[in-house]
Amino acid sequence: MPLKKSWVASANTPDCPFPLNNLPYGVFLATDDERHCGVAIGDQILDVTRMEEDSLIDLPEDYVFMTGVWNDFMDLGPQVWAGFRATLTAALAEGSDQQAALTPYLVPMAGAKMAMPIDVIEYTDFYAGRNHAFNVGSLFRGPENALPPNWLHIPIGYNGRASSVVVSGTDIRRPWGQLKGPNDDKPRFAPCARFDIELEMGAIVGVSSDGPITVQEADDNIFGYVLLNDWSARDIQAWEYQPLGPFQAKATATTISPWIVTKAALEPFRCDTPEREFELLDHLKDCGPMLYDIDLDITLAPEGKPATALSRTNYNQMYYSAGQQLAHHSTSGCPMNAGDLLGSGTISGPTKPERGSLLELSWGGKEPITLDTGETRTFIEDGDTLTLNGAARGDGYTIGFGDCVGKLLPALEDPYQR
Amino acid sequence: MPLKKSWVASANTPDCPFPLNNLPYGVFLATDDERHCGVAIGDQILDVTRMEEDSLIDLPEDYVFMTGVWNDFMDLGPQVWAGFRATLTAALAEGSDQQAALTPYLVPMAGAKMAMPIDVIEYTDFYAGRNHAFNVGSLFRGPENALPPNWLHIPIGYNGRASSVVVSGTDIRRPWGQLKGPNDDKPRFAPCARFDIELEMGAIVGVSSDGPITVQEADDNIFGYVLLNDWSARDIQAWEYQPLGPFQAKATATTISPWIVTKAALEPFRCDTPEREFELLDHLKDCGPMLYDIDLDITLAPEGKPATALSRTNYNQMYYSAGQQLAHHSTSGCPMNAGDLLGSGTISGPTKPERGSLLELSWGGKEPITLDTGETRTFIEDGDTLTLNGAARGDGYTIGFGDCVGKLLPALEDPYQR
Repeated sequence: MPLKKSWVASANTPDCPFPLNNLPYGVFLATDDERHCGVAIGDQILDVTRMEEDSLIDLPEDYVFMTGVWNDFMDLGPQVWAGFRATLTAALAEGSDQQAALTPYLVPMAGAKMAMPIDVIEYTDFYAGRNHAFNVGSLFRGPENALPPNWLHIPIGYNGRASSVVVSGTDIRRPWGQLKGPNDDKPRFAPCARFDIELEMGAIVGVSSDGPITVQEADDNIFGYVLLNDWSARDIQAWEYQPLGPFQAKATATTISPWIVTKAALEPFRCDTPEREFELLDHLKDCGPMLYDIDLDITLAPEGKPATALSRTNYNQMYYSAGQQLAHHSTSGCPMNAGDLLGSGTISGPTKPERGSLLELSWGGKEPITLDTGETRTFIEDGDTLTLNGAARGDGYTIGFGDCVGKLLPALEDPYQR
Repeated sequence: MPLKKSWVASANTPDCPFPLNNLPYGVFLATDDERHCGVAIGDQILDVTRMEEDSLIDLPEDYVFMTGVWNDFMDLGPQVWAGFRATLTAALAEGSDQQAALTPYLVPMAGAKMAMPIDVIEYTDFYAGRNHAFNVGSLFRGPENALPPNWLHIPIGYNGRASSVVVSGTDIRRPWGQLKGPNDDKPRFAPCARFDIELEMGAIVGVSSDGPITVQEADDNIFGYVLLNDWSARDIQAWEYQPLGPFQAKATATTISPWIVTKAALEPFRCDTPEREFELLDHLKDCGPMLYDIDLDITLAPEGKPATALSRTNYNQMYYSAGQQLAHHSTSGCPMNAGDLLGSGTISGPTKPERGSLLELSWGGKEPITLDTGETRTFIEDGDTLTLNGAARGDGYTIGFGDCVGKLLPALEDPYQR
C-alpha cells in the first residue's frame, strides 16, 4: 500500500511517523490544561475532544472523548473504530473539503505534553521472545537448560501492576528493594544496583470477553499497539522471583509510547510467526500472519550527552503473537477487559546487537558496553535517558509510535522521607 | 470488650455474626434490583444507599453510596470511616432515639442477594502462611528444601487478576487448561482434574499511596478484611508456573465473603505474629500486634448432601501481616490504590486437620479424605460446594464475615462453544 496523501503537508514525507496511513490515538494536555484525546497527523495533533464539543464528530454515544482517555471510544467496538478511522481518513485526505473546518482543531505536536492514552485496567507481561528467553535462561541455568520445558508450548506470562504504567516522558526513580547477592550471608534493603530496561511491544485489549476465546477472536479484540519499556530491577528480581515470579522488580514503572497505533494501520505489515519445533495445541494455533514487521531500536543517552544506539531488532522475532497471548490468557475463564494491556515480552534478535535488555547486552554485567561517548555501561546509571523507537516501513511512508522515553533519577536517600 | 447491645434484638445473641460490635459493609440487590450499600446488624441489613437518598446520612460528599459499591466511601479516608462507624453505632445502640427513623431502612438478610462489596482495582495474592509454604514446598521439593531461601525475609507474593474476583454465592466453572503430567510425552488441552481451594483472608486497601510506606502507614491504610477462597487449578499450575509463577491456574475465580469487616471491629482481636528465626529488616518489622485471632474453617458438601468439616485453623498462623505485605508491596515505588485487594496466602495450622487446601489435606492427592457421607475426595468434584467461615470470638459476642461459598460446576464440553 502506498502513502496516502493528506492536506497536512508535513504528513506526506517518507520519514514522517504520522502519515495519513497511521492516524494513531493519544492524549495531550490542551491549553486549558485538561486532557484531550488527539489523533496524530504529520507534525500536528487533531483535537477530537474539542471537535466532539463542537458537534463535529458523529459517534453512537455522546461525551466519548470528554473523559480524556480512549477507553470509552474502545467500548464502542470494532465497527465504530473502523467507521471513525474511515471518516478521519477521508476528512484529512488531500483534496478533502474539510480542510477549512478541521484546521482550527490542529495543535502543533512540538511542545505538546502527552498523557496516558488510556486508563490501563489490568496489565500482563509475557515472556514470548525466544532469543530473550534463551539468553536469560542461559545466564541463569546454562544453555542446555535455557528454555523451560513449557516454553515452546505455552505463552508464559505473569500479571503486572497496572498502577505502575506511565506515559513516555515520565521520569523513573531508581527503586529500593530487598537484595541478597549469592555471596551475602543475609539480605539488606538498598537501592537497586542493576536497573534495566526491556524492549517490548504492548497490545491493548479493546473488547471485553468472559470465557475462553479463540486466537481469531482474540486478534479481533485487540485495539492497537504501543511501544513498551518494562523497567526491571535485576537484583531485586534475582532474590524475590522464586517460587512465584517477579513482583517488586517489575513494579516501579512500565513506560508506554504516547501513541496507540491501531491494528488497522498495521495490517499491511502482518507477517508470520517463526517456524515451530513443536506444533502448538489447536486452541493456540496461528489463524494467519499474526506478527508485524516493525523495526525497533533502543538508545541510551548519559545526562547531557548524545545518545548511543544500543540495539536494533524487529517485532517479527516474537514466538507468540498478542492474539495467541490473549487467547491463552482467557483459557481458564479469566475475564479480560477493554483497557487491559499485554506486554509482548522482551524482543531480542538472534545476534548480540539485537538484544532487547542490558542484562543480555552486557551478559549479566560481565561484558560492559562501550557507548559512543567512550563511557561504559553494564546497567543503567543515574541520569541516563533510555529511548525505544519503532517503525513499520511501507511504500514511501513510515508508521511510528512516538518515542518511548524515560530518564532514570537517582534513588531517594531515605525512601521513607516525604 | 463486651457485647454492645442493639435495639435490633437478633444482634444481641453470642453467636450472631453481626452484633453492634461488628457492623460490616456489603452490597445487596435491593427490591428495585439496583445495588445498594448495606451494613449488617443482626439478621437485618441497614440500607445506607436509601438512607443517603433520604438525606439521613451526613458525609463530606454527596452520592457516596449511589454507586452501589464502597469505593467512594473508602476514598473519604480513615477519619470519615471512624465518624461514620461511631454515628451508626450510636444510632443502632439499645436506647437510641433513632429506632423509629431507621427501622424503615432495615431489610431482612434472609433471601437478600449479595453483590461485590467493592470494585477490586488490582489484586495481589501472597504466600505468607508458613505451614502452607512448608507443606507445598515439601510436596514439590522435599522437606529439607521446603521453604525457599527468601521466604523468612520477604513476604512472597504475585499479582493476580482483579477481574476474576467474585462474591460469595457465585458458581465456579471448572476450567480447561494446558496440562502435562510428569509421564506425558506432550501437553494437551483438557479440563482441570485437580481443582482446589485455598483458605485465605483478604485485606482491602482503603487509602492510596505513591511510593514506599512504612508498616505502620500500611496498617493505617487498610480498610477492612474479607474471607477469601483462592480457587486453584493444581495441574495447570504445575505445568505453567516455572519460571514466572502461577497464571491461568489462579485466574478462573477468587471468591470473597459478602461482608467487609472493618479494621475497627477487629481491633480487640489483634495478636502478635509468630516468633521469627531471622530478624526482619527494619522496613518490614512489626509495629505492634499485627495479626488477628480469627477462627477459620472449611466445609465441603457434595451435591445434595450434608457438609463435612475439612479443616479448622486461625488467622494468627500467618507469618506476615497484611500491613507487612502492603509495606513490602510499596517498596519499589509501586502505586497502591484504594480498592486493591491483598490475599493473605493460604492459612494452614501445624497439624493435618488445620490445613487450608485439599493439596495439603490429601497430600498431593495421595491420601484421600473421607467425608462424613462416606465418599472420599482428593480434589474438588463437580457439584461440590465449598464454604469458608470465619469468627473472631469476643466476650459474649462473635464477629463474622458471612459464609464465603462457591459451588463447582462441571467443565464445559467445548469451552469455545457459546
